[in-house]
Amino acid sequence: MKLANLVGERFKERPSECVIDSHALMIRGGYIKYVANGIYSSFPPLKRVTKKIEQIIREEMDKIDGQEVSFPVVLPAKLWEESGRYESVGSELVRFSDRNESKLLLGMTHEEAAVQLVREYGQSYLKYPFMIYQIQTKFRDEARPRGGLIRVREFVMKDAYSFHTSQQDLDAYYAKCHQAYERIFARVGIPETVSVLSDSGMMGGSISHEFMLLTPAGEDSIVICRHCDYKSNMEAAENIPLPAAKQDSQVLNLVHTPDAHTIESLCDVLHVPQDKTCKAVVYQQKTDDQFVVVFLRGDYEINEAKLKNILGCEVYPAVIDDTCGLTAGFIGPYQLQANCKILFDRTLENEKNLVCGANRPDYHYTGLDLARDIGAVSFVDVAKVKENGICPVCKRKSLTVRRGIEVGNIFQLGTKYTKAMQMTYLDENGQSHYSIMGCYGIGIGRLAASVCEAHHDEYGPIWPLSIAPWQVHLCAVRSDHAEVKACADRLYEQMQEKGIEVIYDDRTVSAGVMFSDADLLGCPIRVIVSPRNCKNGVLEIVRRDQKTNEKIEQEKFFDVLQAMLKSKA
Amino acid sequence: MKLANLVGERFKERPSECVIDSHALMIRGGYIKYVANGIYSSFPPLKRVTKKIEQIIREEMDKIDGQEVSFPVVLPAKLWEESGRYESVGSELVRFSDRNESKLLLGMTHEEAAVQLVREYGQSYLKYPFMIYQIQTKFRDEARPRGGLIRVREFVMKDAYSFHTSQQDLDAYYAKCHQAYERIFARVGIPETVSVLSDSGMMGGSISHEFMLLTPAGEDSIVICRHCDYKSNMEAAENIPLPAAKQDSQVLNLVHTPDAHTIESLCDVLHVPQDKTCKAVVYQQKTDDQFVVVFLRGDYEINEAKLKNILGCEVYPAVIDDTCGLTAGFIGPYQLQANCKILFDRTLENEKNLVCGANRPDYHYTGLDLARDIGAVSFVDVAKVKENGICPVCKRKSLTVRRGIEVGNIFQLGTKYTKAMQMTYLDENGQSHYSIMGCYGIGIGRLAASVCEAHHDEYGPIWPLSIAPWQVHLCAVRSDHAEVKACADRLYEQMQEKGIEVIYDDRTVSAGVMFSDADLLGCPIRVIVSPRNCKNGVLEIVRRDQKTNEKIEQEKFFDVLQAMLKSKA
Repeated sequence: MKLANLVGERFKERPSECVIDSHALMIRGGYIKYVANGIYSSFPPLKRVTKKIEQIIREEMDKIDGQEVSFPVVLPAKLWEESGRYESVGSELVRFSDRNESKLLLGMTHEEAAVQLVREYGQSYLKYPFMIYQIQTKFRDEARPRGGLIRVREFVMKDAYSFHTSQQDLDAYYAKCHQAYERIFARVGIPETVSVLSDSGMMGGSISHEFMLLTPAGEDSIVICRHCDYKSNMEAAENIPLPAAKQDSQVLNLVHTPDAHTIESLCDVLHVPQDKTCKAVVYQQKTDDQFVVVFLRGDYEINEAKLKNILGCEVYPAVIDDTCGLTAGFIGPYQLQANCKILFDRTLENEKNLVCGANRPDYHYTGLDLARDIGAVSFVDVAKVKENGICPVCKRKSLTVRRGIEVGNIFQLGTKYTKAMQMTYLDENGQSHYSIMGCYGIGIGRLAASVCEAHHDEYGPIWPLSIAPWQVHLCAVRSDHAEVKACADRLYEQMQEKGIEVIYDDRTVSAGVMFSDADLLGCPIRVIVSPRNCKNGVLEIVRRDQKTNEKIEQEKFFDVLQAMLKSKA
Repeated sequence: MKLANLVGERFKERPSECVIDSHALMIRGGYIKYVANGIYSSFPPLKRVTKKIEQIIREEMDKIDGQEVSFPVVLPAKLWEESGRYESVGSELVRFSDRNESKLLLGMTHEEAAVQLVREYGQSYLKYPFMIYQIQTKFRDEARPRGGLIRVREFVMKDAYSFHTSQQDLDAYYAKCHQAYERIFARVGIPETVSVLSDSGMMGGSISHEFMLLTPAGEDSIVICRHCDYKSNMEAAENIPLPAAKQDSQVLNLVHTPDAHTIESLCDVLHVPQDKTCKAVVYQQKTDDQFVVVFLRGDYEINEAKLKNILGCEVYPAVIDDTCGLTAGFIGPYQLQANCKILFDRTLENEKNLVCGANRPDYHYTGLDLARDIGAVSFVDVAKVKENGICPVCKRKSLTVRRGIEVGNIFQLGTKYTKAMQMTYLDENGQSHYSIMGCYGIGIGRLAASVCEAHHDEYGPIWPLSIAPWQVHLCAVRSDHAEVKACADRLYEQMQEKGIEVIYDDRTVSAGVMFSDADLLGCPIRVIVSPRNCKNGVLEIVRRDQKTNEKIEQEKFFDVLQAMLKSKA
C-alpha cells in the first residue's frame, strides 16, 4: 500500500510517559493508541505484525496436533464456581451481572471453558491425547498496567489445553510443546528466549516453565546458573543459603538500641555484619488477617511467592498496631508472645551469635543461638536468591540474577481442574479416572512488543522479516522527479505482482522525513529510488536489520531482492 | 486430519430445544457447544468455517481500500458518554466497573472507538477518504437469544468505518461497499442475499441497508415488490393504505357494546368490516412514561420502529390504570379527554363512517367522520405494510412479505458521531468541518449459520466449497480390508501433498455411521474407497452439493478432483 494512505501518525518526540523503548516506539510509529488504562487500539502496522505472529503460532500448534477452537470472552460465573476460582481469584477477575442478574465474568484464562468443551468428548481413553487451542481476547484487571503492550489489561492470547491419560503422556507432550515454543520464538525473531522454572501461582499444578526474553526492560527477575543449565524465575528459585561467618555461641545479652529501627542502623550501632542478624518481616493473610512473622537472616530478602505457596493463600504487608502484641522494629524470636504464625527461613539454620529484636521498644538481644534459645524449629525456604548465590543443581556459587519479559508459559496442571469439574474417562478396563491436563500460553501483543524491545535502535523497531508489517519499504526520494516516480511506480507494481509485501512512499517530502518514517515502520529491507540512483542505473537496498547498504544494477534487482526474502522467510 | 482425532461429538437425535435447522445441525455435528444463554464455544469444524469466511471478508475489505485495525472489547464509559450512547442505549449494553471504580463497558459496536482512533489522524482533508475495519468479539446483552448462532449475546463481527469529506464521497463509497458485500455473500455461497432499506435504529444516520437471506427461519419481516426493485425491512417500509370501501357520511351514534373489547368482537357485534373501524393502540414513552395513543384503521397493525422514530424515543405497551383518563378497550378520538400524545395514522385519512371507542366503558360510536368530528389533524405513517399492499415506488398492489435473516448491514452515519465527539478536519481553505462517516457490519457466526440454513438437508449442512471445513471427506469403508486401507492411506497422503484440505475417516465403523458423520460435517466432495471400488479399480466421488455420484478410474482421479476444486475455489 501507499504510505500516504496509511492510517496513523508518526512523530519524533518520545512521549514522556513511556518508560521502555518498545512502548515509546509503538506510540511514535503509529502502532498503538491509548484508549484507557492498560487498554489499546491497534493501527494497521501492528495488526499486520500480530497477524503474522498468530499465523506462525497456528502453524506450530497445528504441527503438534493442536486443533483450533474458540471459547467465549464472557463466561458464566457458574463455570468458575465449579473450579473454585470464582472465589479464589482476586480483583484481577472482572465480575458483573447481565440484565437478568446472572453472574458473568471476563475470561482471563480458559481452563474451565476448555474442560466444559471437551468433558463429554473425552469420556473414553480412546480419544486421548488431544490438544485444543484458541487465539482470543482476554481481560485481566491488572493493578498496574505498564510498558505499553508489555503489561496490559486487555490482550490477545494463544492459549492451548492438552488432555492425557497418564503423567508420562503429559510429560512427553509437555516436552513437544516446549520445542514448539522454541520454534515459535525463533521464527518471530527472538531465538535467544530462554525457558525457566516458574511458580504456578493461581493456575495450580506442579511443573511449569516460563519463556523469558532477557532484557533490562523486563519486569521479572530470572535466576540463571553460569555453570550448569539451571534457570528459574526468582519466584520459584530455591535458595541455598550462603554460609555466614562461623562464630562461637555467646550468652544472650539485652542491649539498649534506641535508634536501631532497621537492619542497617542496627548493624551500624552494634558493629555487626548483616549476616549475623535475625530480622523479622511481618505479613497478614488475606483470608483471615492472621499475622505471620517470618524470621530470616539479615542479609536476605523475603520471596513473597514462596511465602504464599507455604501459607496457601495471598498475603499483604502487616499493619502492626498496639493490639497485636508485636513491637514494630524490635520483633525477635526469643520470648515472642503474640497470636501469630511464626516461620523460620533456612538462612537461620545452625546460626549462632545473632542479633535480634527483644520484643520491647528500643532493645535488642545479642548472642542469640537458635537451637539453644528457641529450641527445635523446622525451617522453610522463603528467601530470595542473591547474585552469586549457590545453584541448587550444581551447587556452585554461580547464580546470577537477570531481568526478563515473560513471553510464554507452559504448565502441567495435572488433575486440578478435571477433578474439580468432574471430567473423567474410562480406561480399557472400564475404570474411571480424572483426565490429566497441561496448558500453554503466549500473549500476542506482548510478544510483538518484546520483539521490538529486542530489535530496535533509537530511530525505530527493526522487525525481523518473518513478522515485519511489510517486507519492503520502497522510498521514492524526490517523487516530483519524473524518472524517479516512473521507476518507483514500476517497482511498486512489479513487487505487488510478485506477491512481495511492500509499503510505498511516494510523498513529496524530504528524504529526512521519508527515512525517519521508514525507520519507525521498521521494515527490514528498504529500497531507495533517487535521481542519482536513476542516473547510475541502480537501486539502493538498505538492510536495517543487517546495517548494510548496497547499490544493485536495476536488471539484477529482483534476483537480489528475492534471494533476501527467501533467506529468512 | 483424521476424523478419529477430531474433537467434538456427532449424534443423530435433534435436540428438542432447537427451533431452526442450522441450530440443530450445528449441535448435532459438533460445531458449537452451549456455554450460557446466547454464548457458545466453537469446535474445530466451525472454527475452520469461520476462518474461511473471515478471510473472504478481509480480501473484499482490502479490495475497497480497507485497513485492518483492532479496537478493544472493553471500552471506557467516557468514550460512550462523548457520543451520548452511554445513556441512550438500553440494557443490551453491559456496563461494569473495574477495581478502581472506573466505569467500563463491553463494546457492542465501535463507532466511538473508531472516531477515537483516527480523530487526530483525520485533521486534514488530504487524508480522506479512508476506511478502517476489524474482526473482533462483541457482546450485546440480548433479551431473547435464539436460533443457535442466529441471535447470540457474544459474537464475532467484521465492523468497518469509513470517513469522508462530502456526502457525495460517502455515497460513492457506500455503493462500493454495497458491491463488496454482494461479492462476499456470493463467495460464501449465498448469492441470493438481497439488500433492503432498513431502519437505522440506535446507530443514527439516515440511509441504511440490510442484507437479507430470505428464509422462513428468519426473524425479520421483509417487504418486497413483485414488480419493481423495491425491497425494505418491514421496520422501515412506507405504508400506503389500501382503500377501504367508500361509504357516505352518517350521523355519529352512541351504541352499547358491552362485550366488544377487541376489534374482532366489535366487528362481530356490529357487523362491520375491520377497515370501517378506528382502533386505538396505547404506548408509553420510555423517557418520561407519557402516554401515546395511536389511532389507525382496524385492519392495520402498528409498526413500532416507525413509531419510535416519530417520537424520537423508545416506547413500551402502556399500563392503563384508573388515573390516566383512558378507558381501556373503548378509546376513541371523539371527545377524548386524557393527558396524552395523540397520533393519527394515514390509514384513517379521508375515512368516514367508522366505528370507534366512545371513551366510556361498554360504548362505541358509529358513523365517525374524522374531518367532521375531529377537525383537521395531521396524519403520520406508523402502520405495518400488509401482504398485497401498495408499493411506494411503482404504486402497484404488488408487495409481498417474506421472512429473512439479516446477514449484514451498511449505514450512512453522516456526522452523528463526529459532531458529538468533535472530529473535524480542515479543508483546502483552512475551514473546519465535521468528518462524514459510514459504517458496515457483518456477523461472522450468524453468516456461517445462515449459509447452513440456506444449504442443508435433513442429514447435515452442505457447505459451499469456499467455506467448507474441509474440501474433501475421504471415507475408507471397511478400513480393516488391507487393500482399502492402503489405497485410502495413499490418497490421504497425496491429497495433503497437493495442499487439498481433507478429513480422513479410517475408523472401523459401519458405512452407515461413516456416512452419517460425513453428512454432518458437510464437506461438498466425498471420496469413497471400498472393497468393491478397489476391485473395480475406481474411486467414488459423491458431490453432496450437486447430488451426483461418479465412479472414476483411479488414474484419472486427481484430474477430476482438481477440476472440481478449481471450478468453485
